[in-house]
Amino acid sequence: MPLKIAILISGSGSNLQSIIDRIEQNVLDAEITLVLSNKKDAYGLRRAERHGLKHKVIEHTSFDSREEFDKSVVQEIRNSGAQAVILAGFMRILTPFFIGSFPGRILNIHPALLPSFPGIDGQKQAAEYGVKLSGCSVHFVDEKMDHGPIIIQAAVPGFAWDDPKTIGTRILTLEHRIFPQAIQWLAEGRLKIAGRRVEVAHGPEPMLYGSGSDCALISPGLEVGF
Amino acid sequence: MPLKIAILISGSGSNLQSIIDRIEQNVLDAEITLVLSNKKDAYGLRRAERHGLKHKVIEHTSFDSREEFDKSVVQEIRNSGAQAVILAGFMRILTPFFIGSFPGRILNIHPALLPSFPGIDGQKQAAEYGVKLSGCSVHFVDEKMDHGPIIIQAAVPGFAWDDPKTIGTRILTLEHRIFPQAIQWLAEGRLKIAGRRVEVAHGPEPMLYGSGSDCALISPGLEVGF
Repeated sequence: MPLKIAILISGSGSNLQSIIDRIEQNVLDAEITLVLSNKKDAYGLRRAERHGLKHKVIEHTSFDSREEFDKSVVQEIRNSGAQAVILAGFMRILTPFFIGSFPGRILNIHPALLPSFPGIDGQKQAAEYGVKLSGCSVHFVDEKMDHGPIIIQAAVPGFAWDDPKTIGTRILTLEHRIFPQAIQWLAEGRLKIAGRRVEVAHGPEPMLYGSGSDCALISPGLEVGF
Repeated sequence: MPLKIAILISGSGSNLQSIIDRIEQNVLDAEITLVLSNKKDAYGLRRAERHGLKHKVIEHTSFDSREEFDKSVVQEIRNSGAQAVILAGFMRILTPFFIGSFPGRILNIHPALLPSFPGIDGQKQAAEYGVKLSGCSVHFVDEKMDHGPIIIQAAVPGFAWDDPKTIGTRILTLEHRIFPQAIQWLAEGRLKIAGRRVEVAHGPEPMLYGSGSDCALISPGLEVGF
């Protein structure tokens, strides 16, 4: 049985697309039961439509409180039958109610090597800081922003001449590899959380990827097809 | 003419040893004019002695203030003829007076992927946080701790079962490669600082290193012999 997932977006949904692609390639054993956006003009909604996926807009501006918004979103996710929640560029902080509704089953991706550069625009923060290595992280969501136990990270080079876009593009390439892989491990029940540590049962060795300015280090490594 | 450097230590001095080794191998074009420790029992002092290097203890506990201690240290460094200062596990924060005495010529190594885990025991912080990637950073020293412009970074894998020692050993292997390399670039006048960005003139491409659990990503890459 594929893992039923709801994907929450706020923008272009390129990570959503990478998840759709891996499902359609029969690599990722998941079924998207709902694509939900808090912004009605999010381009990711058109991707969902194009692939015949159920999609819905719930604008946070229509609610008096964060709690009321989250209740509505949780209800929609439950109605869809989703077992897990994937935050793919969803720009809202979740309430404890939301997080408690799907314990150990909410994943987020962040465009930085956490705990470096949490919050908005990790790519811009990295470029301005002048790091020589940045990257991306998939983690379980807890009540602090970009803070929960880390499942997989990928490091990419940073350069003195980087702007947020150039380093962001380098990071995004890796986001599209590690996020579907992390979801697959969740689908297979291979993620064991102990405190802040996540172990991937029978997880692959760390992996060197690409070469030159397009190289990366990914840990744990990727399995075939990711 | 080799770059004359003073190396400041507080402990075992394994990074000091890697610098000595690269000089003795005629790879690093530097001359150590002084090894200075703020602790009289630092093992690095014995390494200095063994290699016939001038060494000295100035205990910070003998001074009434941080400023007085730093004045004495700066004087010793000047007397040695050193042009640059290398902090190799020197566990004291420098005063603005010290930093202003060697502008753009003080380098530090930190056992974490800055800006993650600054301060004491970056290896322990990384193990406790449960990161999947950690590493080390060589940077110019400014008035904030572990904060100045970054020259080179190396990422290594972290594992769910890591303790500070296991991840620390993996990081240390890379410290011993990137620190002598950064000093060589300084010696060759190839480091250009612009704000927080450091460009290595004609610097090598990022580099994938090793394999399996002993792999790393180093940016910029290492030149021959490092």
